[in-house]
Amino acid sequence: MHSVHFTAETSSNGVVERDFTLGEVSGVLWSPASGSGRAPLVLMGHGGGTHKKAPAMAGRAHRLVTGCGFHVAVIDAPGHGDRPRTAYDEQEIAVMQQAMAAGESVGPIVVRYNGHLAERAVPEWRATLDALQGLPEIGPDGPVGYFGLNMGTAIGVPLTAIEPRITAAIFGLHWPEALAETAKRITIPIEFALQWDDEHIPRESGLALFDAFASKEKTLHANAGAHKELPRFEVDSAVRFFARHLGLSHIEGA
Amino acid sequence: MHSVHFTAETSSNGVVERDFTLGEVSGVLWSPASGSGRAPLVLMGHGGGTHKKAPAMAGRAHRLVTGCGFHVAVIDAPGHGDRPRTAYDEQEIAVMQQAMAAGESVGPIVVRYNGHLAERAVPEWRATLDALQGLPEIGPDGPVGYFGLNMGTAIGVPLTAIEPRITAAIFGLHWPEALAETAKRITIPIEFALQWDDEHIPRESGLALFDAFASKEKTLHANAGAHKELPRFEVDSAVRFFARHLGLSHIEGA
Repeated sequence: MHSVHFTAETSSNGVVERDFTLGEVSGVLWSPASGSGRAPLVLMGHGGGTHKKAPAMAGRAHRLVTGCGFHVAVIDAPGHGDRPRTAYDEQEIAVMQQAMAAGESVGPIVVRYNGHLAERAVPEWRATLDALQGLPEIGPDGPVGYFGLNMGTAIGVPLTAIEPRITAAIFGLHWPEALAETAKRITIPIEFALQWDDEHIPRESGLALFDAFASKEKTLHANAGAHKELPRFEVDSAVRFFARHLGLSHIEGA
Repeated sequence: MHSVHFTAETSSNGVVERDFTLGEVSGVLWSPASGSGRAPLVLMGHGGGTHKKAPAMAGRAHRLVTGCGFHVAVIDAPGHGDRPRTAYDEQEIAVMQQAMAAGESVGPIVVRYNGHLAERAVPEWRATLDALQGLPEIGPDGPVGYFGLNMGTAIGVPLTAIEPRITAAIFGLHWPEALAETAKRITIPIEFALQWDDEHIPRESGLALFDAFASKEKTLHANAGAHKELPRFEVDSAVRFFARHLGLSHIEGA
């Protein structure tokens, strides 16, 4: 097992941000600035075309760290952020951009390309989790959650299906075609986000993916609005969901 | 305009509970024990066959009072709680019980009977709101929300459609047949609860009622489980929804 290599550290508003690498993988770990005891870990997957420190990632991480005292880790997906694109990445991105420019449906291309990225990303996530659990402030036995929408769901569903250390997850905003069969093997508590007026993902498709999870506790949050209009207040639900399932850490005294 | 007549007062855990009557209507008003300034008001509608002080009502009221500093009012629906049943009430209840005993669908009966109750209840709610706004701790201009599931939705949707003082509402767990056309006239922020495995309300029917609201901000919370298995954690969402839309009162200092 390899260790994470910390390359930079900053701190703001009670949150320590540490960049790390693990072999070819670049990541970031957000942690409470105070407190030395162990705390739960949330893995977050970013969306397609963005990266580990995109505003949505940093914003959600700060809420989970300051609200619950958790650690939050994000790694750049293959071909994203600090990581190089392969010739195949370039080709699929070009196809996607052509479809968008032509006003055609990007769904089939996203489903295919995200499925490919998930095959590369799942083993990276498992190695990252191994390494993060080697840190004394996380440890090998603490609760682990996963939070990823869009491409973060395409990677997170197959990861969660084979990773027993993940015990609660938030998914959403994806098509069911490549994921529904895998979702049927997932039984942990799930929160699932869907945009009721999504211009890319048909409503029935989003509902079908939510329906596929075998979890006894699963909650759909469907909001009026287009694909990119997920309301900001959903992060409040995410914080409460993980607090409920991973437990508040020592930071909150709970 | 008539005034509410307070008939009993108790206090526990920072919450004052006052029974009241307004003509033939029996109700209860829960308020913060401390604080003399004005605070927002949430009207809550109880479910069919229950009453103003059913555990779900008292539990939600305590959370809204202690969490947000709000006032919460519930009135017994016609034929419920302290209020007499008419011959028509008795007849419809008998038909419903026969259908349940025979294992038949109760949906059409509930839709019809709740529609009838709503016609009686809506003017009672409006008179109650008039009277409650005459109290100095509520006042004529403060924010007003409505929170009612099951029969509370059958009464609350037509009430909200004609009552401009209600500016945010939580509905759910009902059929669309008698309500969808009315819901199309409602534009205020809505949270809507649905049980994904409801044995009484077909999934498509619940989704159709949510879809009908014209609100720009509306959120569906669909949870795995049967009709009566709405998770307790949904009350946390309700508290945050009303805090967001009605504003926290002086109690929270926000």
